[in-house]
Amino acid sequence: MEHLREELEELNNRLLEMSGLVEDSIVRSVNAVVNRDNEQVLTVFNNEARINKLEIQIDNLAIRLLALQQPVAIDLRFVTMSIKINNNLERMGDIAVNIAECAHSLLGMPAIKPHIDIPYMAKLAQDMIRSSIDAFVRKDAELARTVLRSDDAVDKLRDEMYADIVKFMEEAPSRVHPGIDYLFVARGLERLADHATNIAEDVLFFVQGVDVRHHAEMSQNPL
Amino acid sequence: MEHLREELEELNNRLLEMSGLVEDSIVRSVNAVVNRDNEQVLTVFNNEARINKLEIQIDNLAIRLLALQQPVAIDLRFVTMSIKINNNLERMGDIAVNIAECAHSLLGMPAIKPHIDIPYMAKLAQDMIRSSIDAFVRKDAELARTVLRSDDAVDKLRDEMYADIVKFMEEAPSRVHPGIDYLFVARGLERLADHATNIAEDVLFFVQGVDVRHHAEMSQNPL
Repeated sequence: MEHLREELEELNNRLLEMSGLVEDSIVRSVNAVVNRDNEQVLTVFNNEARINKLEIQIDNLAIRLLALQQPVAIDLRFVTMSIKINNNLERMGDIAVNIAECAHSLLGMPAIKPHIDIPYMAKLAQDMIRSSIDAFVRKDAELARTVLRSDDAVDKLRDEMYADIVKFMEEAPSRVHPGIDYLFVARGLERLADHATNIAEDVLFFVQGVDVRHHAEMSQNPL
Repeated sequence: MEHLREELEELNNRLLEMSGLVEDSIVRSVNAVVNRDNEQVLTVFNNEARINKLEIQIDNLAIRLLALQQPVAIDLRFVTMSIKINNNLERMGDIAVNIAECAHSLLGMPAIKPHIDIPYMAKLAQDMIRSSIDAFVRKDAELARTVLRSDDAVDKLRDEMYADIVKFMEEAPSRVHPGIDYLFVARGLERLADHATNIAEDVLFFVQGVDVRHHAEMSQNPL
């Protein structure tokens, strides 16, 4: 039982490490776009290798835990959720790489920008990611619900950004190429918010599972 | 033991049902773009609700199986992989919805197209998806490796498509808007191929886990 607690704690810490790395990549990739900073691009590329390695370690840890500790009830749900969140975080790291690639592409073009607020959209997405992970770690359904509500704000902002980028691109053929990079940056941020929403939905399912478990315990059901 | 086999079989069948539905959505979303067919758009939207429901059923099945059957070794890896693949498939269903949304947006615009081969790219992505799922179900590392090799072909095709779409958009401001929709269709297909690649990488890890298990069994390690 003591080992189970220790290993769950280890899994928890590794997931936080993973989400910290992914968050770092997102911040740097956005900075790379906004400040035209190639150093940040390279750091994001380096982070990716660490994120991929950590993904495998977390999967192995979760499988080991299932095999050796055979957790039940809420602990079992915690481990299976970890596997899903781990998968989502790895994809989010890939999106940060995509954004960094756009930053790199934009460096080869004149420094003109559409009138869009990338840092604000990035901040929204980042807050959603952090809240979704916190909601998981603290088993906090209310926090998970705030993430679901934020998704509407992101969708609205996304529509405005797309309209502004289209206008920017229509002004001159030379703006089509950089416009596409900005479009993919906006799309990347939108997808990050989608991933956070997916995690938050899973957390609600996870926490609802806790309620199910309370009834189930009475009937000796290990769920 | 008999129950374990039955429940693994059930999980297997549900995953195949899920991947069948997702594949259907992909085919329809691409047809909707190519043939300007709004009927297909609506079917993809309807599929999404079924896919989301099935995702929850599969997760519950996997958690139930872990709790009640406590599988070890390769069976345990099969179940944890199922959770990851399930997550990937749900995301792929979302991508099909994105493509269908592009089809819907294109219906409101004149029927001019960039010179790009969407059906071919779609066929490549679809083959990769089917092979990655087959590789999982048959525990076939060689088939998984063919998926990884296909990813280069998709990336090359993607670069060509992007260049053609940019050229198309640069020709007239009125082409910017439809061009963006085509761009997102191409991007969606690329991401579908990425998901298939992720699954194939996981399958290799899964099958390698089988080898590890053979050594492990001798030392009584449940992995």
